[in-house]
Amino acid sequence: MLDLLIRQVTAVTMNDQGQILEGANIAVKDGKIVFIGTELPQEMAARTIEGGGKIAMPGLINTHAHAAMSLMRGYADDYVLQEWLNDHVFPVEDKLMPEDIYLGTQLSMAEMLATGTISFTDMYMHLNQMAQAVEDGGMYGNFSNAGMSFDPKSYDFDADDVTRQNREALARYHQADSGRLLLDAAIHAEYTSFPRLWRDFAGFAKENRLNMHVHLSETQKEHQDCLQKYGKTPARMLYENGVFDTRATAAHCVWVSEEDMDLLAEKQVTVAHNPVSNLKLGSGIAPVARMLGKGLRVSLGTDGVCSNNSHDLFEEMKLAALLQKGVTGDPRQVSAYQALWMATRAGAFAQGREASLGQLTPGYDASLILIDTNRPGLLPIHHPESTLAYSAKGGDICLTMVRGKALYENGEYTTLDIERIRSRLGGVLNRLFRA
Amino acid sequence: MLDLLIRQVTAVTMNDQGQILEGANIAVKDGKIVFIGTELPQEMAARTIEGGGKIAMPGLINTHAHAAMSLMRGYADDYVLQEWLNDHVFPVEDKLMPEDIYLGTQLSMAEMLATGTISFTDMYMHLNQMAQAVEDGGMYGNFSNAGMSFDPKSYDFDADDVTRQNREALARYHQADSGRLLLDAAIHAEYTSFPRLWRDFAGFAKENRLNMHVHLSETQKEHQDCLQKYGKTPARMLYENGVFDTRATAAHCVWVSEEDMDLLAEKQVTVAHNPVSNLKLGSGIAPVARMLGKGLRVSLGTDGVCSNNSHDLFEEMKLAALLQKGVTGDPRQVSAYQALWMATRAGAFAQGREASLGQLTPGYDASLILIDTNRPGLLPIHHPESTLAYSAKGGDICLTMVRGKALYENGEYTTLDIERIRSRLGGVLNRLFRA
Repeated sequence: MLDLLIRQVTAVTMNDQGQILEGANIAVKDGKIVFIGTELPQEMAARTIEGGGKIAMPGLINTHAHAAMSLMRGYADDYVLQEWLNDHVFPVEDKLMPEDIYLGTQLSMAEMLATGTISFTDMYMHLNQMAQAVEDGGMYGNFSNAGMSFDPKSYDFDADDVTRQNREALARYHQADSGRLLLDAAIHAEYTSFPRLWRDFAGFAKENRLNMHVHLSETQKEHQDCLQKYGKTPARMLYENGVFDTRATAAHCVWVSEEDMDLLAEKQVTVAHNPVSNLKLGSGIAPVARMLGKGLRVSLGTDGVCSNNSHDLFEEMKLAALLQKGVTGDPRQVSAYQALWMATRAGAFAQGREASLGQLTPGYDASLILIDTNRPGLLPIHHPESTLAYSAKGGDICLTMVRGKALYENGEYTTLDIERIRSRLGGVLNRLFRA
Repeated sequence: MLDLLIRQVTAVTMNDQGQILEGANIAVKDGKIVFIGTELPQEMAARTIEGGGKIAMPGLINTHAHAAMSLMRGYADDYVLQEWLNDHVFPVEDKLMPEDIYLGTQLSMAEMLATGTISFTDMYMHLNQMAQAVEDGGMYGNFSNAGMSFDPKSYDFDADDVTRQNREALARYHQADSGRLLLDAAIHAEYTSFPRLWRDFAGFAKENRLNMHVHLSETQKEHQDCLQKYGKTPARMLYENGVFDTRATAAHCVWVSEEDMDLLAEKQVTVAHNPVSNLKLGSGIAPVARMLGKGLRVSLGTDGVCSNNSHDLFEEMKLAALLQKGVTGDPRQVSAYQALWMATRAGAFAQGREASLGQLTPGYDASLILIDTNRPGLLPIHHPESTLAYSAKGGDICLTMVRGKALYENGEYTTLDIERIRSRLGGVLNRLFRA
C-alpha cells in the first residue's frame, strides 16, 4: 500500500535529465518517492491528491538565514549598515533570551513552509533552541552558531561559548548521514575573527565531518579592509587557513575577485546568493553570471528578514535571474531553469543533502511542494519552469511536504501551532522593543 | 445610512500629512470615503468589516501595462530583445483578434484585483475591446492605442487606424472629469514614429484635454540611435515637438540624461518606472534616486507580463526601493514610504486622478485595499509602511474595492467571471500558439 499518490500533476523534476513531465503520477511510501512517471502505479494509496492544475517540484532550500531575526522584521529599514547594526539590531539581540530564539525560528518556519521552503541553513545564537524549533517544526535544518572573536591572542567569551554550544549540539541534535537536523561549523566572517579561530573551527568541522558556513565579502568595506590588513582577500585568507577543506557555503560573495571565484570553484564551495538582502543593505549585486560561467555552484538565501523582509524563495529565484539580466544587459543570463536549480539542486548540495533532496526522483525524500496554477497570475502556462521562476509567488503554494508528511496544506499547519506563535509574540515584542 | 464601515483598521492614508492611523474607522457612502478617524461615526452602516489585524491603504495604480499580453505570459523568456520581439511577440500579435484583447485584458484585471491594483494605464491595440473590458471589470483604466508610423512623408495604415480608433473611443468610452475610463493619447516611442506624427498626436491630446503616454529611452540602443539620427535625445525631440505640453507619462526612462530629467521635471512629466521588466529584458536600471532628487514624479508599472511575468505592484514597490539602495550603495535611498507613494499618489497624478484616487481622505473615492496581516510572513508589524513595502505580497490582499464596491474579496470576484475566462483561454491559446 502506498502512503500517497499525486495524480496527473505537472512535475518539474529537477532531475539530471531536466525532465518536465505532464500528467505525471508521483507515488510515496515510507517518506520516499517510490515512483514518478506517466503510468499509473498498480498499488493502492492511503491518500490520493488530484494534481490537475497543479505543478509539483522539489521543496525549496534556503541556504542562508538567521531565522529568529523574524522578531525584527521591518524594525529598522532604510538605515545605513552600521547604524542598522549598532543602533538597532545589536541592542535588541542583547536582550534576546533562549526562548525568543525558539519563537522567532518557529515564526520563520511558518512563513517558509507557507512559501514552499522545506529546508534552511541557519546561523544565529542559542543552538539548542534553534535545533529544537526545527526538530519540532518538522523541516530540515542545518544550524550553526558562528565563531566570532576580536582578540587574536586568546579566545574571548563568545568564541568559547560557541565551541561549548557546538559540542553540546553535536551530541544532542546532529543527525549524521542525511538526518533532518545537521550541525554546521560556522565562522561569522573574516573581519570578526582571526586565523587561529578559523583553523580551530575548520579542524572541528573536519574532525566531525560537518559543513562549514561563513559570510564572505558581503560589503566592499570588509573586502578592502582585509586586503589592507593582510594583503590578501578574505577568500584567500580563509582558503589558506583550511576553512574550505570541508564542504563549505560562503554567503553573499558580492565583492569577490576573479581569483576568489577560482579558489571557491577549486574547493567546490557553494556561494549562497542573497539578492534581496544585498540590495536592501546597499551591499551591491554579486557577480552571479560570472560565477556560473566559472562553474561555481550558486544557491539562494534570504538572509535574516530584518534585511529582506521576507523568507519567500520564489522572490529570490526571480530576482537572482532578473538582476543578472539587468546588470549584464543580456536577458539570456540566468534562465528560469537555472534559477530553479539554485533553489533546489544547488541548495541540496550546499547542505550535504544531495542524495535525498533537490529532485523528484525515486529513492529521494518525498519532500516536495505543489503550486496551484489556477490563479489568474499564473495563467496561461506556456513553460512550467517559467511559471515557477517568474510568475509564481510563495503564496501560490497549496502543499509543502517533508518526507511524505504535509507540514502545510491550504493555509493549515500540522506541526506548528500558529495561534500559539501569534499569541506568544505580543509579550516577547513588549520585552524586546518597549522595555 | 452608511454603505460601509471598516472598523478598527490600521490605515496607511497616504494623505498630505502622511498619517498612519491605528484603530481607524473608515466610513463609505455613495462610493466615497466620508469619514476616516479614530472616533466611531454615529451613522449606522449597511455593512461592517472588522479591520482588526488588517491594514487599509489606497488601491494601487499601475501606470504602464499592456494588459492583453497576459496571453503571452511566460511564452518567450530569456531571449535577447530583438529575438523576443521579432521571433515571438510580433508573430503572435499578428494573430490577435479583437475578442482576444478583451479576454487577455480581463485575465490581467483578475490578477490585478487579486493583488491590490484598482487602476491601470494600458497601451495596446483594439481600443474598443480594451475599454469594454475595463468597463465590465469595474476598474479604472487609462487606455490608449499608440501611434506608430515608419514613413516620415505620409501616414501609413497603422497611424491612420489609430487615429480613427482614438476618435471613436473618445466619443464612446472616454469619461472626462474623473470617470473610470479615460482615453489617453499615446505615441509608441521616438524610434517608431517621426515628428509630424508627434505633433499631430500632441495636438489631438491638447484639443481633447487627454493625457499623453509614451515609451522613452527604454534601451540604450534607442537612446543612442536617436542621438545619432537627430543629434538630440528622445526626450529633447519629444519636448520640442510639444508631446509634453499636456499631462504626460513617460514609461521606462532607463537611459535618460541629466538634461532629459530636467526637461521632464520642467514639464511635470511622470516617469513610469518598470523595474522588473527593465531587468528582465536586459534594459538596465533607471536612475530613480537621481530623478527623485530632482523632484521628478516617479510612478510604477509592470509593463506587459510577457516581460515580467506578473502584474503584482507589491513586487514593483519593493524592487523599486531595493534597486536604488543596491546600485547607489545607500540603503536610505527610496524608503518604504516613497515606494508606497509611487504606487498611489504618483500614479493618481499620472492618470489625472489625483482628486479622486491615491489617498484615504474624505471626499476621495472609496477605492482601497485591505491587507491581512495575520499571515506569518507579515508578522510582527513594527512599522506598517515597512510591512506594506517590504513584506506584503499581492497575495496578502483580502479585499480590493472600487468606489465602495468590493470587486475582489477573499478569492472571489464580483465583476469578473473567472471560470469563463479560464474556459475561454484554452481555445484562444490553441489558435494563437498551436495553429
